[in-house]
Amino acid sequence: MSRQTSGGWVRVIGTGPGPERWMTPETSAILATATDLVGYAPYVARCPERAGQIRHASDNRVELDRANHALDLAGEGRRVAVVSGGDPGVFAMASAVMEALATGPVERRALDVTVHPGVSAMQAAAARLGAPLGGDFCAINLSDNLKPWAVVEKRLIAAAEAEFVIALYNPASKARPKQIFDAFAILRRVKRPETVVALARAVGRPDERVTLSTLAEADLTLVDMATCVVVGNSDTRLIDRGPEREPWVWSPRYVEG
Amino acid sequence: MSRQTSGGWVRVIGTGPGPERWMTPETSAILATATDLVGYAPYVARCPERAGQIRHASDNRVELDRANHALDLAGEGRRVAVVSGGDPGVFAMASAVMEALATGPVERRALDVTVHPGVSAMQAAAARLGAPLGGDFCAINLSDNLKPWAVVEKRLIAAAEAEFVIALYNPASKARPKQIFDAFAILRRVKRPETVVALARAVGRPDERVTLSTLAEADLTLVDMATCVVVGNSDTRLIDRGPEREPWVWSPRYVEG
Repeated sequence: MSRQTSGGWVRVIGTGPGPERWMTPETSAILATATDLVGYAPYVARCPERAGQIRHASDNRVELDRANHALDLAGEGRRVAVVSGGDPGVFAMASAVMEALATGPVERRALDVTVHPGVSAMQAAAARLGAPLGGDFCAINLSDNLKPWAVVEKRLIAAAEAEFVIALYNPASKARPKQIFDAFAILRRVKRPETVVALARAVGRPDERVTLSTLAEADLTLVDMATCVVVGNSDTRLIDRGPEREPWVWSPRYVEG
Repeated sequence: MSRQTSGGWVRVIGTGPGPERWMTPETSAILATATDLVGYAPYVARCPERAGQIRHASDNRVELDRANHALDLAGEGRRVAVVSGGDPGVFAMASAVMEALATGPVERRALDVTVHPGVSAMQAAAARLGAPLGGDFCAINLSDNLKPWAVVEKRLIAAAEAEFVIALYNPASKARPKQIFDAFAILRRVKRPETVVALARAVGRPDERVTLSTLAEADLTLVDMATCVVVGNSDTRLIDRGPEREPWVWSPRYVEG
């Protein structure tokens, strides 16, 4: 059997950070034609219900198993959407699917696999806040499940010293409550205490909670798995909008010479 | 006259990298209700035509003028969409609108202004390529119109040494043909010559052209304003798919300890 004529496919997609208004039409169209959805349960739950569509919802931290499962299903002729939240290319399933293709049976590389962009959590957070990513920025995954903490530490210091705005993903979980405290301890050694910090939790969803603070004073007990933490650079500032509305967060486009 | 009761607003939006399949429903809805579109001419041209809607298309590099114009129109009761390509929060108009609010008349801060996320060029490039942004990554604007080149140089070195995957925006233009050559000269001092490089031009548009190469061998004369240049880290690799299809670009999620 030629796998290419089986009609099966894998589409690696992201729902965006939550509401359907941030899901691209391309992603919606894929969800409408997939026979199978594969993904972490909370992301699969965000997809509209469709009669006859099979949902393979799995636990967290089994990304490679999930990717292999999706490729196997496609090899059997199924049309499989691999569902991430946000953008599948940003700390999500695209890399796991590539890992499955790179490390699995070579013949699977003939499968019809494509990746499709989406809106990532830092972008929803940025829009909600104003323009915190207005200059050069970086995104760092604080989980040390897949890399040594020394790598995270090195990247935090480099990003702070070179004045990138920093978006921190997966800053804390029940199994890893400590990393965000360690990361802030590192950043506080390099950056000024008054550096603008935003804790942007579940932006766009009913349980959204945005907290503006500073590097010195941020209450890190508020940080959980649904939080994107944005740490400004030296030029990031607040724009006051009076007592009734929270200030905008603005990182200028320019850097003074 | 209370500006808040004038009914005017500013919505800072991005069309995504090109095709409508990457434009969020939220952005489409805003474009459908705006009375005025303000933006760089090629981005305004991407928006669907609507009878009665006024298009204020402007030249490049007048972002602050454009932002002030949009705020003035909203103060007169107009419903103004400020249109960027990609995501307005990533090297686009959100920061310029914040700058106009921060530096202009304080009463304008009472205007109804919101920012809305979109898909940025590096995300479309990443999806097209596979998963090049699979680990920690940064985005650097190579234009030195608004910052000294020394800042760009410092950030390139920091990103290379700390093993971020690097997405370079605005890598070259007719007025700035030299920056991408200078940037690669810097990166070549720090990174291995075989580092994976992708020149992802106009991804998703009819004039798309994607070129895979290495840090040593990339043909930088192919790079223009519509190109997003992705420079891998030491772990970024190609996944061969046979002679008929170009390889995937994969940055692993993990870093070996």
